[in-house]
Amino acid sequence: MKSIKHQDLLKFTRQVFIAAGSEEDEAGLVSEYLVRSNLCGVDSHGVIRIPDYIRMVKDGSLRPNVVPKVVSSKGATARIDARLGYGQVSGKMATELAIEKAKKYGTGTVAVFNGNHVGRLAEYTLMAAEEDMIGIMMIKAYGTIVAPWGSRSGLLSTSPISFAFPGKRHPPVVGDFATAASAEGKVRVRYNRGEKVPPGWLLDAKGNPTEDPSDLYKGGSLLTFGQWKGYALNLLMEAAGGALTGAGVLESFTGLNGVLVLAINIAFFSDVDEFKDKVDSMIEQIRALPPAKGVREVLLPGDPESREMAKRMKGGIPIEEKTWDKIAEVARSYGIDVPKAR
Amino acid sequence: MKSIKHQDLLKFTRQVFIAAGSEEDEAGLVSEYLVRSNLCGVDSHGVIRIPDYIRMVKDGSLRPNVVPKVVSSKGATARIDARLGYGQVSGKMATELAIEKAKKYGTGTVAVFNGNHVGRLAEYTLMAAEEDMIGIMMIKAYGTIVAPWGSRSGLLSTSPISFAFPGKRHPPVVGDFATAASAEGKVRVRYNRGEKVPPGWLLDAKGNPTEDPSDLYKGGSLLTFGQWKGYALNLLMEAAGGALTGAGVLESFTGLNGVLVLAINIAFFSDVDEFKDKVDSMIEQIRALPPAKGVREVLLPGDPESREMAKRMKGGIPIEEKTWDKIAEVARSYGIDVPKAR
Repeated sequence: MKSIKHQDLLKFTRQVFIAAGSEEDEAGLVSEYLVRSNLCGVDSHGVIRIPDYIRMVKDGSLRPNVVPKVVSSKGATARIDARLGYGQVSGKMATELAIEKAKKYGTGTVAVFNGNHVGRLAEYTLMAAEEDMIGIMMIKAYGTIVAPWGSRSGLLSTSPISFAFPGKRHPPVVGDFATAASAEGKVRVRYNRGEKVPPGWLLDAKGNPTEDPSDLYKGGSLLTFGQWKGYALNLLMEAAGGALTGAGVLESFTGLNGVLVLAINIAFFSDVDEFKDKVDSMIEQIRALPPAKGVREVLLPGDPESREMAKRMKGGIPIEEKTWDKIAEVARSYGIDVPKAR
Repeated sequence: MKSIKHQDLLKFTRQVFIAAGSEEDEAGLVSEYLVRSNLCGVDSHGVIRIPDYIRMVKDGSLRPNVVPKVVSSKGATARIDARLGYGQVSGKMATELAIEKAKKYGTGTVAVFNGNHVGRLAEYTLMAAEEDMIGIMMIKAYGTIVAPWGSRSGLLSTSPISFAFPGKRHPPVVGDFATAASAEGKVRVRYNRGEKVPPGWLLDAKGNPTEDPSDLYKGGSLLTFGQWKGYALNLLMEAAGGALTGAGVLESFTGLNGVLVLAINIAFFSDVDEFKDKVDSMIEQIRALPPAKGVREVLLPGDPESREMAKRMKGGIPIEEKTWDKIAEVARSYGIDVPKAR
């Protein structure tokens, strides 16, 4: 395992995207989101993605410097054609537009199609929370590795959902998770690290439960989280992120992420201070509970990420050698100096 | 176990609510929703609720014939004061208003406070699906029996979520489930039937896992579904159904259900036929998958309910004796003839 300072990683990542053709703003945005994922401990959505992104730029499926196009804007809704640009660019634009709509109509709902990978969803729902809104993002993701509950064949994708809402004295509560038992990237991280996956994540090609991450890449499938409930939520992602946005479902799916982002303006429903006080009260009462056996303290969704961030801001970002080697190879192909990782 | 024809049960239930003071329309609506829950096999939300509802009418916490009041209507949003009437009345009104808003603005989001138990959520989200919309309902439920993930004390409620979206040749796909591992009512049904609950549902008063439903009523707690993911969703229900609606969170909660209903008008985003074709294609591909070991066929969310309905329409509704006795007692107190159950 290597370790690298987040400032160095950010600067380096920015250079790579500029070398791959992005203008400064775009390179800055994509790098910021990726490195913040690593800072939060969500390594599956961090710089591990660089080689994939660059490969896609080279093969033309990801187009730098594209300006997403608002193809319709009616009432509290809008649709954006991401035109195969960076998902971070269209994701941010869609969220900003949803927030703008919500200021006028109380809610804003914006769909994105032809979109690439948006990265960690919490980036966007937290934008809404910072504007005193409840943010919700539903994604139809690429891939067919998730088995519908009761079947033994991959057909669905790991489609994630995120939501965030603000407190006053506390940072926002933020949920962000795959409707599969795991994001594919988390299986990949364990595969790269030579680790097992927990039971309940995977079926092998024959439909038997397995803890070997390599089985996923040999015809196996991921299970949905929470049995049939996560399966139902996964289908909502197909419908809202796939069919509704125009990105398509299953085999008709285009792009990497079909995105539906919702912003619900708290002020249209409640005194904002009162809402935040209630959230604070909830947070404080939860933290004060006695923990279960073997648990040190009761956490809120978002806590593990913010704690890891505090830790990694000081101590650096750990990256497994295999991942780092692949990233370094991409950088060297552009003649970029690879920063020292210890 | 007794069995009763659904037509007889409906007529009888209607008589009970009329005797308890409801006008014909209200009694008809509440009865229809309760009996349809039983028809669907969701007995936890069926006529088992009659004694509770009537007790609440008698103690004044549920008020018959109340007209819910729209206290604000701004842009794509509205707020409704249910004024402690039947939750079915305000739930239906909120959904109709959300649909009306969505026809104009593309989406409609309506909050309900001072609301009583709305029954089975799918009733409402299916109303949106029938209008070519995606319906979503989020509820903050009464009670503090659900333990935040990692703790061993009940603090949260079983808060359910439902969503539905339409196909063309197929009935809508509909998800409807508690963010707890189970609805409290399902624990109660097993308790009444003298059955165990599955592992992963309950902790006893000392925080140990248990399969004895009676432990829940002796200081135990329910777990969230899908570990920390269901916990995060549960907190969204507190925020959206509780803090946002004004119904309150945790100990400040008033009424039995704080409701947020969203309708997303498909036509604002996509050709409606195209959307439905995609949903149909998804449904058909899922049904065609090879089932897992021990599973007869791969189902869609909503299938178990519609199959049970077909069965119970013909064969009658099974009700455990203990439950039936309690309902019969209420009816007799009003001098209503109790229909024969075999």
